[in-house]
Amino acid sequence: MSDGTNAQDEIAELRARSAPTRRATVPAMEERLYTPHKVLDHGFVRVIDYMGDDAAIVQAARVSYGAGTKHVSNDAGLINYLMRHWHSTPFEMCEIKLHVKLPVFVARQWIRHRTANVNEYSARYSILDREFYIPAPEQLAAQSTVNNQGRGAVLEGEEAARVLEMLKGDATRSYDHYEAMLSQEGQQGLARELARMNLPANIYTQWYWKIDLHNLFHFLRLRADKHAQYEIRVYAETICEIAKDWVPLAYAAFEDYRLNSVQFSGKAVEVLRRMLAGETVTQETSGMSKGEWREFEGVIHNGS
Amino acid sequence: MSDGTNAQDEIAELRARSAPTRRATVPAMEERLYTPHKVLDHGFVRVIDYMGDDAAIVQAARVSYGAGTKHVSNDAGLINYLMRHWHSTPFEMCEIKLHVKLPVFVARQWIRHRTANVNEYSARYSILDREFYIPAPEQLAAQSTVNNQGRGAVLEGEEAARVLEMLKGDATRSYDHYEAMLSQEGQQGLARELARMNLPANIYTQWYWKIDLHNLFHFLRLRADKHAQYEIRVYAETICEIAKDWVPLAYAAFEDYRLNSVQFSGKAVEVLRRMLAGETVTQETSGMSKGEWREFEGVIHNGS
Amino acid sequence: MSDGTNAQDEIAELRARSAPTRRATVPAMEERLYTPHKVLDHGFVRVIDYMGDDAAIVQAARVSYGAGTKHVSNDAGLINYLMRHWHSTPFEMCEIKLHVKLPVFVARQWIRHRTANVNEYSARYSILDREFYIPAPEQLAAQSTVNNQGRGAVLEGEEAARVLEMLKGDATRSYDHYEAMLSQEGQQGLARELARMNLPANIYTQWYWKIDLHNLFHFLRLRADKHAQYEIRVYAETICEIAKDWVPLAYAAFEDYRLNSVQFSGKAVEVLRRMLAGETVTQETSGMSKGEWREFEGVIHNGS
Amino acid sequence: MSDGTNAQDEIAELRARSAPTRRATVPAMEERLYTPHKVLDHGFVRVIDYMGDDAAIVQAARVSYGAGTKHVSNDAGLINYLMRHWHSTPFEMCEIKLHVKLPVFVARQWIRHRTANVNEYSARYSILDREFYIPAPEQLAAQSTVNNQGRGAVLEGEEAARVLEMLKGDATRSYDHYEAMLSQEGQQGLARELARMNLPANIYTQWYWKIDLHNLFHFLRLRADKHAQYEIRVYAETICEIAKDWVPLAYAAFEDYRLNSVQFSGKAVEVLRRMLAGETVTQETSGMSKGEWREFEGVIHNGS
Repeated sequence: MSDGTNAQDEIAELRARSAPTRRATVPAMEERLYTPHKVLDHGFVRVIDYMGDDAAIVQAARVSYGAGTKHVSNDAGLINYLMRHWHSTPFEMCEIKLHVKLPVFVARQWIRHRTANVNEYSARYSILDREFYIPAPEQLAAQSTVNNQGRGAVLEGEEAARVLEMLKGDATRSYDHYEAMLSQEGQQGLARELARMNLPANIYTQWYWKIDLHNLFHFLRLRADKHAQYEIRVYAETICEIAKDWVPLAYAAFEDYRLNSVQFSGKAVEVLRRMLAGETVTQETSGMSKGEWREFEGVIHNGS
Repeated sequence: MSDGTNAQDEIAELRARSAPTRRATVPAMEERLYTPHKVLDHGFVRVIDYMGDDAAIVQAARVSYGAGTKHVSNDAGLINYLMRHWHSTPFEMCEIKLHVKLPVFVARQWIRHRTANVNEYSARYSILDREFYIPAPEQLAAQSTVNNQGRGAVLEGEEAARVLEMLKGDATRSYDHYEAMLSQEGQQGLARELARMNLPANIYTQWYWKIDLHNLFHFLRLRADKHAQYEIRVYAETICEIAKDWVPLAYAAFEDYRLNSVQFSGKAVEVLRRMLAGETVTQETSGMSKGEWREFEGVIHNGS
Repeated sequence: MSDGTNAQDEIAELRARSAPTRRATVPAMEERLYTPHKVLDHGFVRVIDYMGDDAAIVQAARVSYGAGTKHVSNDAGLINYLMRHWHSTPFEMCEIKLHVKLPVFVARQWIRHRTANVNEYSARYSILDREFYIPAPEQLAAQSTVNNQGRGAVLEGEEAARVLEMLKGDATRSYDHYEAMLSQEGQQGLARELARMNLPANIYTQWYWKIDLHNLFHFLRLRADKHAQYEIRVYAETICEIAKDWVPLAYAAFEDYRLNSVQFSGKAVEVLRRMLAGETVTQETSGMSKGEWREFEGVIHNGS
Repeated sequence: MSDGTNAQDEIAELRARSAPTRRATVPAMEERLYTPHKVLDHGFVRVIDYMGDDAAIVQAARVSYGAGTKHVSNDAGLINYLMRHWHSTPFEMCEIKLHVKLPVFVARQWIRHRTANVNEYSARYSILDREFYIPAPEQLAAQSTVNNQGRGAVLEGEEAARVLEMLKGDATRSYDHYEAMLSQEGQQGLARELARMNLPANIYTQWYWKIDLHNLFHFLRLRADKHAQYEIRVYAETICEIAKDWVPLAYAAFEDYRLNSVQFSGKAVEVLRRMLAGETVTQETSGMSKGEWREFEGVIHNGS
């Protein structure tokens, strides 16, 4: 499972091969192919394969909409139009396959996105490596006092040291015992499918993950969001960089119409119209709840 | 929408382009790319793109099963093993994108397979071409007298002539009226989204259809089956030929463990054991219903 | 397939039965059960079964978020919060099963929503009834001159009469020929799976359609939208009425945060902030394309 | 999260309520509703809701196949026919919602079935309870020497004692440290979303899980299989008992045509025909690989 010398050789070999193809090809993705992009302390994302490009989106849209698309003068304009009007099927015509190494607690969030194909390393068949995610000091954050699922200030001094000691100590001991239970020296050796239950959620696993562009954008919108947990967000951000190279026009549209977009409720739109007409609106006169109003103000005052 | 002169030029242009790639590449598929393979009287299947090959299936399986797969000595053996034991995820790592032109009544069956990406030509936006499926004389079959969803003998003589006349006449008249309703000469012209309702189910539509290999095999098992309606089966058979070129090892395993396989119920397995032990079993002593017994006998006596 | 006398008896029988249950029960839905709600000229929607209610959404959310939901003081507040923050899984915990009778061209749009369970009447097995959708005079609209997929003014006078005559005449003739081809009097009779190809897209079909509330809302957002084709929108509007009875809190949240909501792109949000700060912004200084700007103005000036 | 006194009260309250309904109702399921069925040392399965029954499957099939189903004389016969011929959509018309408490390593296998709705307890929002799966002595099995993903003999004596000591000790220590890191007494307290990474895979989680009957059967076929890991198999077996009560006819068909069925490859069917014709076939003359032959012999000689 490790990405040591053998893996280096395999990557070099894969990157060395080249064949002519008539398929849509993206030079910037060819450059990225097979090379692991580091994430967290031991994780990575690497592109194994891709299908389609910006032109493939346009090509599929023109099949669907035929003459209806002729008035959109160029590819960027058409892609923006499709994104703005929630035409998802042309984006489904692109596909990407990634090899990802990630802590188990991140994998558990990630797998909730059901519209992807996954081949995960099986700890029932094979033995996991001794690799654990230990947060960098600047990521060792306190529980947020305002948000049940958020982080507050960074821990400092002795508390930070205690936490790191516990995380490292428990990981080490759990893995030592995992090996001790599996060992067949002088004993039978516990079944792998049982021994794995002793391993903590910060151990690394890996998988092949294949997804179409529409569903990838949905994943990125949720996981590259600033409210996503840091440990999955860094993976999403790495994949954003990859997508930017792969389908630059679609990514730009995604950024404007999804990542940076804001959804206003019917009530909020009404308030907005009153404000633009010069009226002063307060939470009391807005018809919104306090929570909604706080979020609304965050958006229009550039905070959020 | 037609595949006339412009389409020929576009195909030639697409086929002429070539770029080096580090991705998995299958020469036999490169040869097929963009060329329409004729199906029925006006339909076709053409490969627009593909991702992965037999080696990609093996590569994904080895990520999942790690050391657990080392004992399977070669790729063919591993792929057979995966297919036999219903390990579907490695097959999901391959993907194919097809451009298909097909009659609407075939499209209606086809779309029931939900795990695919589809971009269909929209008759709301654009105008359909005057192209209808008219069965060849040897496909003009009578209703089966034993199977509610099957065909019996081929129609002959006057009856066949009457049927063809009705199909052709109604198609022509419907399309004439479709054009007449749409026309803006001397009148407003009916909305496209309404005019299309006059068109019969044998008019041709087209779509881009993208699916992973596992789900493609599921589609092919149902639609290349001899009980499938002829008009969809010929599409499935064409795609079988393509798949054979694309992933020869996986296709051979699919043929043996799916297409040509037989599912025996628990009761049937019991009867088989008794028969192999020399017992003579009849429907009455089998515990099976008459319908089951008939199907069982069909299989073991090479009929089916 | 028809909903004549037998169907009436069956409905009366189903409605007469009653049994005690410990499951979540919604009196207003019990009232609706099995009764067909008319749509278009021969279509209907009727509720066959439902699972869950507003409380089931809350119950599921509290499993997920545990103590994290305690601060939201009541069910309506929690449901609004979930909807606002795109927490979709609690809404997936409710399910509805509908029996729908609809024209084939509407069914073809509808089936594109893949996350539902469907049992459609099979014209391969059985014979379709002589029932066609013929638009009411006020729905006989011209092609829009500004929108490729829209309708313009209503057709009048002779043109309207001509269109109705063509639609009715072609439907009648196609069905007469359908029957003539199927007939086994004095001839073999064409297979049903072939004869159906002569039927136009305004013939009625029917299906059982089962979907969870999250995906139902997605369907309704697209199909109850004013840009949806009238013939599917009336089905969506009927289902909106049903959903309002079924899960009144969730429906209210859906209405505010989805149906009546507006998505502003990152660029549009920037412009809004400038406007609210008193700046006069024009299309030229907005950074938006003409199309975007037109849509943006439509929203903020109450047009949309 | 615990199911202590409050949970008992809640269950009693839920079970006490009753309302009349016109929906399909199954008395044996009413009896089961809300009561937890124990699985493993701290786990459970309880039915929260259900939709449909055997009659609902028949009802949906009759919509699809219309007159085509009239010749199947009764419900059991029709359901058997549907199951035998892979007609999956009528089974999708039934739905069940379960509340399941299960160890995380079991949850990780379970979630791979993507066609279900899930609301899992979130350790990002809330604090997990101190409850760990510790295998019973008779489940403490050695690694299989023939099967990479299987178990061999039960561990004995000192080895068993050592394993239990390690599992219990590590669980206790990990949880103590989890609490210590979270504690806000005299320190800030680590964020929940981080602290959870220290917890081992045998800690219990819980979720609401909702699935249609077709996909439930698929899950049960894989997880109630004797090759499935014991710790998930006991959940599947409990659900089998529930399904038997819920849809007795469909369950019987599932048992015969899926659970107890055997898939024979094209090659195996050929060999079978030769054997039934009196020929003696060996692996060498069968055309099968050694692995296939071993599995084939296992089936026909009642071993498997």
